[in-house]
Amino acid sequence: MKPHEEHRSRGPRELSFWVVTVSTSRYEAMASGKNYADESGDRAVALISQAGYKVVGRSLVKDDVVMIRGILMDLLRRPDVDVVVFTGGTGVARTDVTVEAVRPLLEKELEGFGDVFRLRSYQEVGTAAIMSRALAGVSNGKLVVVLPGSPNAVETGLGIILPEAPHIIYLARS
Amino acid sequence: MKPHEEHRSRGPRELSFWVVTVSTSRYEAMASGKNYADESGDRAVALISQAGYKVVGRSLVKDDVVMIRGILMDLLRRPDVDVVVFTGGTGVARTDVTVEAVRPLLEKELEGFGDVFRLRSYQEVGTAAIMSRALAGVSNGKLVVVLPGSPNAVETGLGIILPEAPHIIYLARS
Amino acid sequence: MKPHEEHRSRGPRELSFWVVTVSTSRYEAMASGKNYADESGDRAVALISQAGYKVVGRSLVKDDVVMIRGILMDLLRRPDVDVVVFTGGTGVARTDVTVEAVRPLLEKELEGFGDVFRLRSYQEVGTAAIMSRALAGVSNGKLVVVLPGSPNAVETGLGIILPEAPHIIYLARS
Amino acid sequence: MKPHEEHRSRGPRELSFWVVTVSTSRYEAMASGKNYADESGDRAVALISQAGYKVVGRSLVKDDVVMIRGILMDLLRRPDVDVVVFTGGTGVARTDVTVEAVRPLLEKELEGFGDVFRLRSYQEVGTAAIMSRALAGVSNGKLVVVLPGSPNAVETGLGIILPEAPHIIYLARS
Amino acid sequence: MKPHEEHRSRGPRELSFWVVTVSTSRYEAMASGKNYADESGDRAVALISQAGYKVVGRSLVKDDVVMIRGILMDLLRRPDVDVVVFTGGTGVARTDVTVEAVRPLLEKELEGFGDVFRLRSYQEVGTAAIMSRALAGVSNGKLVVVLPGSPNAVETGLGIILPEAPHIIYLARS
Amino acid sequence: MKPHEEHRSRGPRELSFWVVTVSTSRYEAMASGKNYADESGDRAVALISQAGYKVVGRSLVKDDVVMIRGILMDLLRRPDVDVVVFTGGTGVARTDVTVEAVRPLLEKELEGFGDVFRLRSYQEVGTAAIMSRALAGVSNGKLVVVLPGSPNAVETGLGIILPEAPHIIYLARS
Ligand SMILES: [Mg+2]
Ligand SMILES: [Mg+2]
Ligand SMILES: [Mg+2]
Ligand SMILES: [Mg+2]
Repeated sequence: MKPHEEHRSRGPRELSFWVVTVSTSRYEAMASGKNYADESGDRAVALISQAGYKVVGRSLVKDDVVMIRGILMDLLRRPDVDVVVFTGGTGVARTDVTVEAVRPLLEKELEGFGDVFRLRSYQEVGTAAIMSRALAGVSNGKLVVVLPGSPNAVETGLGIILPEAPHIIYLARS
Repeated sequence: MKPHEEHRSRGPRELSFWVVTVSTSRYEAMASGKNYADESGDRAVALISQAGYKVVGRSLVKDDVVMIRGILMDLLRRPDVDVVVFTGGTGVARTDVTVEAVRPLLEKELEGFGDVFRLRSYQEVGTAAIMSRALAGVSNGKLVVVLPGSPNAVETGLGIILPEAPHIIYLARS
Repeated sequence: MKPHEEHRSRGPRELSFWVVTVSTSRYEAMASGKNYADESGDRAVALISQAGYKVVGRSLVKDDVVMIRGILMDLLRRPDVDVVVFTGGTGVARTDVTVEAVRPLLEKELEGFGDVFRLRSYQEVGTAAIMSRALAGVSNGKLVVVLPGSPNAVETGLGIILPEAPHIIYLARS
Repeated sequence: MKPHEEHRSRGPRELSFWVVTVSTSRYEAMASGKNYADESGDRAVALISQAGYKVVGRSLVKDDVVMIRGILMDLLRRPDVDVVVFTGGTGVARTDVTVEAVRPLLEKELEGFGDVFRLRSYQEVGTAAIMSRALAGVSNGKLVVVLPGSPNAVETGLGIILPEAPHIIYLARS
Repeated sequence: MKPHEEHRSRGPRELSFWVVTVSTSRYEAMASGKNYADESGDRAVALISQAGYKVVGRSLVKDDVVMIRGILMDLLRRPDVDVVVFTGGTGVARTDVTVEAVRPLLEKELEGFGDVFRLRSYQEVGTAAIMSRALAGVSNGKLVVVLPGSPNAVETGLGIILPEAPHIIYLARS
Repeated sequence: MKPHEEHRSRGPRELSFWVVTVSTSRYEAMASGKNYADESGDRAVALISQAGYKVVGRSLVKDDVVMIRGILMDLLRRPDVDVVVFTGGTGVARTDVTVEAVRPLLEKELEGFGDVFRLRSYQEVGTAAIMSRALAGVSNGKLVVVLPGSPNAVETGLGIILPEAPHIIYLARS
């Protein structure tokens, strides 16, 4: 076993995830009782479950700094949540504020996550990868991940973070 | 058509570029009426034109924070400019200040641009890529790009940004 | 000769390195007179020497912001040191503070170093690369490098920085 | 009527306050069912009520960044809260983190509040005023105030902020 | 002569000021050819002239970060301007952005200006002084001042800065 | 006894100070063996001694970020130093870098020190007080103070900090 495989194996076996979709249009559909699809959130839940982790909850918020920081602080205080996954609101439009909302609340940023995410995106979609903002870090002993709001980006991002989550949580709590 | 191709196609068909060369030695040659060559600026103009965009203007400034920020603010206020491309002043010498001058004036940084730029540079020049500072972001609905002052770096950087410029502008104005 | 090879060849022929290991456990072993192994520091010294540079000194400090900044400021003031290499304390545990201690003391960060480091780490260890924080920059005409505290990471990082060190020093002093 | 009196009179007539005491010792007393006194919180409630405003709630949290930010985000999302007053955790001991927790979550800081607070403190306690950290700002259309955890400091701080609260809220919502 | 009087007397005898009014409503009135009054700008011009300095120009811009930074960069590049005075846009409403636009473009902030401004404001208007954001600093050898958009605040601010302007300019250029 | 008098009395009875003069001209005089006067440093030593504290050392450095940070880190690591007092290099000239060098190395800034310093300066020299940058904070359980390089400013600053030093040290170590 190589060192990083050893470390990885020392992490908690069971991890509990919470998935937060950031989307004003879906939020307003939900609020007015209309039907809406949340393909990115659905994909996240499916991938997390397939990897053998638990999804203990799911939320939908607007592209709004206060709502995003609010749900993040709710989850950081919950003892039954280990990993928070945001999807959506990461582009360069003025309404995209998820990265801006979450970054100042991380204790340490995993700078390499963005690098590996872009490397894989580049291999998949070429230069369009430059528009993908993505973020991971730790706070209060939990892992926080921010991914773009497309099912493909969610798949790319979780493909990187899911194998490492137990190790990151182990270190963040040490 | 994949989603990123769809988005790309929604951007404005015509984009107007302004190229700014940052070089104290060339600026002083120009100011004293001497001949000078600006191979990087020339290369930028040629590549932008070949890609089917318009180059509506070109400037030469010194390695000076006030001059760099001044020309940037001039261009951000012009309705006839969509993309500003700086070349030069991105190294680690004390006189290299283009990145320091431009970064605080961006509304949002396209963090992935630097990653993809270094990935391609690394494939081209190996470990020397670590000295290449490059930057892209949006401000006032325009795209701003900072590239090193070598023709090769300009080619690498524009090769990444030119295909995505319409999509970025489309998002930045939404 | 390509331009980056030309530049590289203009750097100083002889460079003097100082290696600093950051490790509370080793520091305490040393302080209490016990034996301890510093495999990462040993590997750094061997690689630097094999590359034809001099190692003029070596230190061991705790995972402590004041000790790390203290040794860095000692070395930045020494005329006989050109490059400072830190190893250790770069993870995401709360006790890992080397990046936080060093970053604010750099005049310019070589942002691309982290990118190329992660690219190579990704090729070596896959997604575990996202946990590797690494940093390089210049201050007071010297090069400062921060690497994780594993022999493999030291090898990856020095493999990137050693060929470029003369060129970086040359630029940082210009 | 002078201009600032005119503006002040345009603010909402009724304002709802929430008082948060930050104190690990009191929190632990409460958690273990022991009696504890919260003289600063009591003083805040009394002064707010005497000024004709409503106190709609009161909380007690530990000197802990996550708990402080958590309660702040809870209150910023409540439509029935206009002003949040924190008391405690503003000193220079390592455990004092209220200012550090709250400041990054303010949209705009009222820099002058700290100045006037120190001016009055200086008139009351002389040079000891230099240790009083205090903070006010706006976020999400609400006013957030951070005061030291002594009844005298609460009296000084509220004496400054209570007359201006309607005007600040009026502006923050415009 | 006390030391600060000596220093003050060493500054340039003639100083050239440019007054910028920041006000969306006045800007739109001007743009649509309507009459408008700019009492604060008028007061600034009168006070600067009475103090024996020249006012070489005057501008009116909207509460817009790009317009404010644009005019500032225009003036910082003009050899015939020594001092730039902004009035307006300093409050806590969301549209108030003058402080946010100007602060990052200062090389050094004169932190004490805000303190003395608030002290005098407090003596004049009491606790309402806490809402007055004001700023002074130097950039490119020039003095930049930001004052609230009321004639009284302009009078208070210029009463502090006008006697010191020659000394500040002298130091900023040394 | 009022609360702040009680706290003050709990601080250590004996405190050891180190005085650092920041002045390129004096440093160069010293280095070339010429006579020089350091009136501000002398005044600091005299006032500290008169207040009943010990001055355990004194240094002279240039207006240079690396030298200033170097001596500060030396002193922060010494167990026999409780308080570090810098004098000089606090103006707005480009060569004045003491505030910029020291501020990022403080764990917590005593924001109120600057306020009270300016209030007293204003009472002494009027509007010239706006040019006085001054700073105090704690780091590694020690108190760090930065004062302008004039004997009057040293007297004003130490008049504020000396009575509070034991209390600040007591809190910074708790
Ligand atoms: Mg990156
Ligand atoms: Mg990177
Ligand atoms: Mg103040
Ligand atoms: Mg102040």
